[in-house]
Amino acid sequence: MFRINENYSKLPGSYLFSTIAKKVSAYKEANPDKKIIRLGIGDVTLPLSAPVIEALHRAVDEMGDAEHFHGYAPDLGYAFLREKIAEQDFRLRGCEVYADEIFVSDGAKCDSGNIQELFAADTKIAVCDPVYPVYVDSNVMAGRTGTYDPVTGTWSNVIYMPCTEENGFTAELPKERPDLIYLCFPNNPTGAAITKDRLQKWVDYANENGAVIIYDAAYEAYISEQNIPHSIYECANARTCAIEIRSFSKNAGFTGLRLGYTVVPKDLMCGEASLHDMWARRHGTKYNGAPYIVQRAGEVCYSEQGKKAIREQVAYYMENAARIRSGLTEMGYSVSGGVNAPYIWLKTPDGMSSWEFFDYLLQNANVVGTPGSGFGPNGEGYFRLTAFGTHENTLEALSRIRGI
Amino acid sequence: MFRINENYSKLPGSYLFSTIAKKVSAYKEANPDKKIIRLGIGDVTLPLSAPVIEALHRAVDEMGDAEHFHGYAPDLGYAFLREKIAEQDFRLRGCEVYADEIFVSDGAKCDSGNIQELFAADTKIAVCDPVYPVYVDSNVMAGRTGTYDPVTGTWSNVIYMPCTEENGFTAELPKERPDLIYLCFPNNPTGAAITKDRLQKWVDYANENGAVIIYDAAYEAYISEQNIPHSIYECANARTCAIEIRSFSKNAGFTGLRLGYTVVPKDLMCGEASLHDMWARRHGTKYNGAPYIVQRAGEVCYSEQGKKAIREQVAYYMENAARIRSGLTEMGYSVSGGVNAPYIWLKTPDGMSSWEFFDYLLQNANVVGTPGSGFGPNGEGYFRLTAFGTHENTLEALSRIRGI
Repeated sequence: MFRINENYSKLPGSYLFSTIAKKVSAYKEANPDKKIIRLGIGDVTLPLSAPVIEALHRAVDEMGDAEHFHGYAPDLGYAFLREKIAEQDFRLRGCEVYADEIFVSDGAKCDSGNIQELFAADTKIAVCDPVYPVYVDSNVMAGRTGTYDPVTGTWSNVIYMPCTEENGFTAELPKERPDLIYLCFPNNPTGAAITKDRLQKWVDYANENGAVIIYDAAYEAYISEQNIPHSIYECANARTCAIEIRSFSKNAGFTGLRLGYTVVPKDLMCGEASLHDMWARRHGTKYNGAPYIVQRAGEVCYSEQGKKAIREQVAYYMENAARIRSGLTEMGYSVSGGVNAPYIWLKTPDGMSSWEFFDYLLQNANVVGTPGSGFGPNGEGYFRLTAFGTHENTLEALSRIRGI
Repeated sequence: MFRINENYSKLPGSYLFSTIAKKVSAYKEANPDKKIIRLGIGDVTLPLSAPVIEALHRAVDEMGDAEHFHGYAPDLGYAFLREKIAEQDFRLRGCEVYADEIFVSDGAKCDSGNIQELFAADTKIAVCDPVYPVYVDSNVMAGRTGTYDPVTGTWSNVIYMPCTEENGFTAELPKERPDLIYLCFPNNPTGAAITKDRLQKWVDYANENGAVIIYDAAYEAYISEQNIPHSIYECANARTCAIEIRSFSKNAGFTGLRLGYTVVPKDLMCGEASLHDMWARRHGTKYNGAPYIVQRAGEVCYSEQGKKAIREQVAYYMENAARIRSGLTEMGYSVSGGVNAPYIWLKTPDGMSSWEFFDYLLQNANVVGTPGSGFGPNGEGYFRLTAFGTHENTLEALSRIRGI
């Protein structure tokens, strides 16, 4: 009789956002007249910008014309997009990253879930706590995380790096040596940013200890302050220890279009083995490229009009973030984030647990957020709100929270 | 120091089609004046049909309008597409398959590469020989295949099921019991089809032996003969042993648009563990859904106009297949396939090896095909040509081959 990958059965419960979706739809069914405002999952609400829509229409027309039809894309992405990325996202910021080190994909979630495949089965991972669930869950599925303790909500073979009020939610260097370190800045879920000096310490630590950093920079476009690096490659020597993952979802609103990329520098070696070559092999074997029309839409994000549209969309959401921050602060909540990131991280009031506060907000304000404990034990007692709603809904949500 | 997944280094050479691409581009560079005709990789040449193009434009317009914008898709696919698939691809053919058993994805290659993750590390796989390289390579990366013997071109822990002239290229039931059996019919690369009676024997074997069949039906639309099943669920009791993978690439020409799906029936259990639930969990954790606009394009393939367009595209390619078959037969080649599949499988002449014939055709006729040995040891001495060229190029290729 065939047997399954038993690691799957170790995963406690379902994926966080699926659980939330089920709770919300149960509430909606029981209360069909209530208008729910979703500030939970990090999905955008603004439509795609005019330059993106035009690029899509143009590319669709090409696909209907024999002379300009595009079949299978190059596994690693079209050169027209990879070159724009390397130049504008990196070299213009002084980072040494080349087009052939960019791997275009259908999104940062897939890449951050799949990247662990390149590493040995007994690789020890370190994650921030709280943390985006995909990093840990994908390693659970691969059997790297040991046993789960339902009381503490932790895995025996994972190094947790607490992100707390005390350290500004940016984590301390771990005491135990990890092989693989997942960092996400600006951070999901806390909204914290990391300074360049501090990030340099992580890079130095990884190089000194033979560790690899998976740097998730999906929220880079939201950085508003100086001295916050947009890429880990702004730090010296990051090319020998860091992989960076980027997304078009949160800057250009491609959550429903699916486009992201991963940078694997050619200097990132394990003895003779090149992680760049390995990732290329994985793309070649298990992936078939992002759609041509979506890659054309990605390309236009680097035009003057495309960049202007992104700035406007980001400004729209950051206006929400500012309103949520100030509104909640006025109401007496303790809040952080929302300055270099579209997430606001708030302390639940009156010692409520994260899920208690979730139910409380859903039932009394019909507002959906994300329980901090869903992101890890140190998220308990916190709650994430996103700035991705419409202005109207964001203000309405604040007014309802004020009312309860 | 971190360590890599050493299984990657066991993979001999690069992915077959990457090797071919490199050889062709070296030849082109050395001979810039030669017009190369590609009948190698199975990429389509006809543009997307008018109904698909219209559906894409409509969906793009929705994405530019706040009221109709679509962000993250449901992990498993939109209901509008899953319901059409279940009804038209399955229930109208008498197969018991439901919408919530359909998992929409960005293509059959990803699904056939990822599906092995659901199974135990020591799962024993059986594959046809020759075979589409992704099935074996993805299991090599997962460490299941033992050691590679470069002389025989086989892995010590894989059960090979020879597909030869003698068994009509449809393989015999294996003598050693496998856990996981990969079958692809109509077959890539041989173009062979399997009758319903014969496929029923595989289903019965799998049920009796506690094995799972991964049934790759990407070429289903090319079936022209009666008594050739379009789905494995046409066979009795397939719901307890079979997963089916489908593609929009070869029927509707979505190679550059990326859409496919996998059926995991809810009856497919391993004790208490449901493979359906596991695959849903994988989608939820490591995938973020196929683009809304592409799913709308998939939906229109089930309209009357969409189905008519698919029939016309398939007929166009099958006219090529018939020409290649008859042309090569006239020239004295021994050919099979091309009746229920867009692939023609020919014996190389004069005892040439597959790669010798590849070079011979490339240099003398400037025609690119795929060496049979690239698909496995029993492919040695064979060569695959695809019917996916234009009529003009197909006829021109035949005329050039005739001339050498």
